[in-house]
Amino acid sequence: MALLIPMEDVADRRLEEFARLRDSQLRTRLETERGLFVAEGEKIIRRAVEAGCRPSAFLLTPRWRTTLVDVLDGFPDVPCYVGTEAMIEAVSGFHVHRGALGTFHRPAPPSWAELLATDRLVVTQGLVDHANLGSIVRIAAALGWGGLVVSETCADPLYRRSIKASMGSALQLPWRRMDDDTTDLRRIREAGFTLVATTLGDDAVPLETVPPGGRLALLLGNEGHGLPDAWQREADVRVTIPMARGVDSLNVAAAAAICAYELRPTAP
Amino acid sequence: MALLIPMEDVADRRLEEFARLRDSQLRTRLETERGLFVAEGEKIIRRAVEAGCRPSAFLLTPRWRTTLVDVLDGFPDVPCYVGTEAMIEAVSGFHVHRGALGTFHRPAPPSWAELLATDRLVVTQGLVDHANLGSIVRIAAALGWGGLVVSETCADPLYRRSIKASMGSALQLPWRRMDDDTTDLRRIREAGFTLVATTLGDDAVPLETVPPGGRLALLLGNEGHGLPDAWQREADVRVTIPMARGVDSLNVAAAAAICAYELRPTAP
Repeated sequence: MALLIPMEDVADRRLEEFARLRDSQLRTRLETERGLFVAEGEKIIRRAVEAGCRPSAFLLTPRWRTTLVDVLDGFPDVPCYVGTEAMIEAVSGFHVHRGALGTFHRPAPPSWAELLATDRLVVTQGLVDHANLGSIVRIAAALGWGGLVVSETCADPLYRRSIKASMGSALQLPWRRMDDDTTDLRRIREAGFTLVATTLGDDAVPLETVPPGGRLALLLGNEGHGLPDAWQREADVRVTIPMARGVDSLNVAAAAAICAYELRPTAP
Repeated sequence: MALLIPMEDVADRRLEEFARLRDSQLRTRLETERGLFVAEGEKIIRRAVEAGCRPSAFLLTPRWRTTLVDVLDGFPDVPCYVGTEAMIEAVSGFHVHRGALGTFHRPAPPSWAELLATDRLVVTQGLVDHANLGSIVRIAAALGWGGLVVSETCADPLYRRSIKASMGSALQLPWRRMDDDTTDLRRIREAGFTLVATTLGDDAVPLETVPPGGRLALLLGNEGHGLPDAWQREADVRVTIPMARGVDSLNVAAAAAICAYELRPTAP
């Protein structure tokens, strides 16, 4: 059993890693410095453990402490703070639907060689909305794509809301962040991938004309601006989803679903 | 120009139709009683006017009053309340990103005959999440589907958050609510539609095996439970999107995007 610590003071400094979870910037700083991510709810906590992630601490209501006892038993040295739902909300600053939070050490990302061993990669550039990113991770995992690469400035797949929107798939799908967008795009192409850029440009070809074989990397751009020119220039093919008149675009997660389906890997 | 009324008291009873916009149940009651919907932001206000919807009132910051002056000029009898962003927030109870709200009378729904004149219908059953419903509306409109039918208990396509997620498409795509689910499902089939139910059932056929021709109605179920048995029994075909091992489902909006794309109408 983990170390049970009744939570008596919501300002207790030991709870700092659970505090102010609402503030994305603060979280990002804390998460980068300490290398932690936050799992919310039983399902995602279990996925994190199954994925081999090492917990830093738990913050649970008594009910969830009971339900998760088998997980806690596996980590006798990890502190488990126990408090009421209201106290957990006061610490974390948001409504915790499922009364269970865990902080985990971030897993080491796969090497490029490991990540590029698949035939289907999703590459996201500059996404800002965590729900969109999480949805895209879930889609990629569900449709059998082998990995994800996020650009230098893209949102974090392990941010609490991303993991939630991904239903935990962010802990299953191998992913890593680019060190340098241009260098790494070229690295992907040199590994034999055709870079398929999604765009609304007039000179793009319809999605269904892309030959389905070979190794494909699907490039998805920022919600407002789409892929920057530099990315579009690096692409081998620029595709578009034909739209009805008067409708200008699809949300990036919907576009990702359609492209990832149309270009899905053939069953092994 | 609409009747300009400086907003002096946030508790003014004339502002009631903008009040407590956060409370979905209250809104539903008010909207059903008064037959109003709320458009948020310039783009959606303009779409509502373009769609021929009659405004009941506007609530704007001075800046948006200026930007929307051409719209306001068209409705000399409609009150336009003008206040600061903070006052609009105090009245509506949520953060108004774009400082512009309009209430509009709901358009009369199309008749069944009008709605069934298309070859591609989306039918949503019991969706509870307005963002999902709005995304589905946007997808249907973008991919050239001709209309939407929502079940008796499904969320409202004209609820503020649905319209927003649809980027205003809820004002373009013809739609109506069922009076009785079973009767109306049969009505759709009798009009010559093949009812295609999306499901996770083991006995479902892969999506890509559905013949693309003819008239198709795509049935999408509740986020948690999927389509109820009664609906699955009424369906002519039960389809599933083949998933990778270990991933149990896609979000309903992602599934809708894939199905609506795979079964899209051929260009006229």
